[in-house]
Amino acid sequence: MTTSCAPVAPAAPSTTAVPASLEVLSAGVRAPLAGGGDVEYAALDYAASAPVLRRVWEEVAEYAPYYGSVHRGTGHLSRLSTELFERSRETVAAFLDCRPADQVVFTRSTTDSLNLLAAALPAGTRVFVFETEHHAALLPWARHGHQVTYLDAPHSPRHAVEIAESALAARPEAGGPALLCVTGASNVTGELWPVAELAAAAHRHGARIVLDAAQLAPHRPVSVRRLDVDWVAFSGHKLYAPFGAGVLAGRADWLTTAAPYLAGGGATRVVNRRTDGGVHVQWAEDEARHEAGSPNVIGAFAIAAACRALTEAGHETLVAHEQELLAVLREGLAEIPAVRELSLFGPAADRVAVSSFTVAGHDNGQLAVELSERFGIGVRSGMFCAQPLVRRLLGASAESTEECDGPLQALRVSFGAGTPREHVTRLVDAVSTLAG
Amino acid sequence: MTTSCAPVAPAAPSTTAVPASLEVLSAGVRAPLAGGGDVEYAALDYAASAPVLRRVWEEVAEYAPYYGSVHRGTGHLSRLSTELFERSRETVAAFLDCRPADQVVFTRSTTDSLNLLAAALPAGTRVFVFETEHHAALLPWARHGHQVTYLDAPHSPRHAVEIAESALAARPEAGGPALLCVTGASNVTGELWPVAELAAAAHRHGARIVLDAAQLAPHRPVSVRRLDVDWVAFSGHKLYAPFGAGVLAGRADWLTTAAPYLAGGGATRVVNRRTDGGVHVQWAEDEARHEAGSPNVIGAFAIAAACRALTEAGHETLVAHEQELLAVLREGLAEIPAVRELSLFGPAADRVAVSSFTVAGHDNGQLAVELSERFGIGVRSGMFCAQPLVRRLLGASAESTEECDGPLQALRVSFGAGTPREHVTRLVDAVSTLAG
Repeated sequence: MTTSCAPVAPAAPSTTAVPASLEVLSAGVRAPLAGGGDVEYAALDYAASAPVLRRVWEEVAEYAPYYGSVHRGTGHLSRLSTELFERSRETVAAFLDCRPADQVVFTRSTTDSLNLLAAALPAGTRVFVFETEHHAALLPWARHGHQVTYLDAPHSPRHAVEIAESALAARPEAGGPALLCVTGASNVTGELWPVAELAAAAHRHGARIVLDAAQLAPHRPVSVRRLDVDWVAFSGHKLYAPFGAGVLAGRADWLTTAAPYLAGGGATRVVNRRTDGGVHVQWAEDEARHEAGSPNVIGAFAIAAACRALTEAGHETLVAHEQELLAVLREGLAEIPAVRELSLFGPAADRVAVSSFTVAGHDNGQLAVELSERFGIGVRSGMFCAQPLVRRLLGASAESTEECDGPLQALRVSFGAGTPREHVTRLVDAVSTLAG
Repeated sequence: MTTSCAPVAPAAPSTTAVPASLEVLSAGVRAPLAGGGDVEYAALDYAASAPVLRRVWEEVAEYAPYYGSVHRGTGHLSRLSTELFERSRETVAAFLDCRPADQVVFTRSTTDSLNLLAAALPAGTRVFVFETEHHAALLPWARHGHQVTYLDAPHSPRHAVEIAESALAARPEAGGPALLCVTGASNVTGELWPVAELAAAAHRHGARIVLDAAQLAPHRPVSVRRLDVDWVAFSGHKLYAPFGAGVLAGRADWLTTAAPYLAGGGATRVVNRRTDGGVHVQWAEDEARHEAGSPNVIGAFAIAAACRALTEAGHETLVAHEQELLAVLREGLAEIPAVRELSLFGPAADRVAVSSFTVAGHDNGQLAVELSERFGIGVRSGMFCAQPLVRRLLGASAESTEECDGPLQALRVSFGAGTPREHVTRLVDAVSTLAG
């Protein structure tokens, strides 16, 4: 019976069961309570970092004794590691439904992937990005010297396409290279963005598009071909594989002609002194060009293991589980008068298992602390590395400059594979108690 | 008795024992032989990537179920992960004997660390680097737009100091910022470089110095204070902790005033729209400035675990073990007439457990394959990402442009904690057989 501890949640038991391949390693971990005793930890901050899938951990643990130097090593473990690393690329390419000529570059994270792309854009590229993006998608472009057009927050997916289309049409350097950067699912509201429509709009206007799939890939299938995006970026640590790796996948042309992201071994083919005393370098032209240094074999292999686990479990199983819990969460929170859900596209918009809200009359940062200390629940508070968006959603001006430690904070709940219904009902119950 | 399978090695049994805390996870792993059957794999490519220390693995495995989002997360596992991550910084700072005000930035690798420093140098910095460096130390400076003076290969440590000193004294931009980049131990010859003397020379001439400790830190204690270097860089994967993390540690001033290495969340304090439509960013000023994106908590924690293991086992234990095996290796190889050891500073120079050589009359790349297929030994062949140095040591011109797939290849043997004497004697025996 869940009713005694979670009165707001529907009484019906969960109708979906997550398969064993989607079980997480942290299942059953206990959290101490400030008042004494402990409780099963409710991890509801998946949007920041998801727990390790048990299956990912087991595959990494099985491989770890066989870890060896990759590429030029000729020993048995070096060959094995090189093969696992290169096969991991193929697994990721299949997971993303890439085009045959696409490259899959292993990076350290989505942030790193988007910085790599920013560093690789042809000179003179104009970048278009909504102000609503995560800082990782908002900031790399100007940092790498590109002209950026920041687009205002839209009020619907259709409005987003209209805004992008008119900005692309009006760009000052008509015919020059252009890039639209867009999220697949907001890390604040969980709302899905019209990626295929935005890709079509970008291409109609001679621009390219990169998809920030950090929040999308852990929840929904991502098809580079079907969405017709030029690049996609995501992180291992949000995809149940937190071993320091991420991915940038997509078109090879701009990557191949760009200066190497990092200068160092692995990215070089020939290095020699020049007769004038300098050094001449002939760089690699495949993925290695942007992967200087020893590849993070375990990180890449862990991502591939997560891709396999999600694919084999079936996204529809995960989506059904998450959507059921999301309904429990949102219906429960909707019954608490002080709670206001943050949304750009309105309550009916399709969204992944990420939801942010405020509780009127409370310091939301303090509420997050109380959720942890009194209820063993881990959520996130603040502006979620999307400050212009959260400022707007909280009713402040996007131009306001307050730090998020003050009243300018929201609470975010996010979950996924391995989340039992009880974690969500406990959260709703706890917010109800604290808001009262 | 080892004499039957390793006739060249001294008959005395090993006098040093490696403590259990320096045991590696791959101990006892078998490698298949081309002729059928298998043999215990002899991993002799530590200089590329070392196996995982068993103790590092156990600490990571113990932590993995408690992995959580770091920094703004308020839940129990988020706090635990944040604390582990920040404590890992302190462990690394202690391991490197840093100054109190030094920063410890977690990167993805030594390559990444040196690229970060290259990106952070003040405009107008002239960089001095020996042509003998690994590509990761040789190439980032020009890639990031700095003027670089490449210094010719020295023939002794003292000669290295003389070369550096006269180049620094003659620099065209007297008084402007300057940096000397130097390795602690060569990844090709294993030879130790006179780091403290080079640091003193750099400072005498108003320059700073960064130490590439990728090959030094796994073998010898590194004291930032005693060596008086300004920065030091190393990789987890060469330090028995291959989870995608590396370190750049040292002076905060240039790091704090530089543009952030990656643009994204975590590195930002305040982000807001400007009234002119742009975006204003106030960046963090501590280590977070250059660590945008979710930190690689497991990678950093694994490095800290390795630092603890090496410190507790005592470097003197590891050094004694390695030096004994290095003597076995070098004395054994010296008795094979076709073998020529590669060396800059001569046979008596102090060196870590890294040694490269050629076998006259053989394709050394093919020899590496045979060492693997017939003897289960993993070494590396090629130019070891130090092409100008290896070209020179092989008697070619440093200006030659051949790729290393041809005859322009050497063999490299490297080892460390967890290497039994039998792996080294088997290698010597095998080379003797193949060279015959």
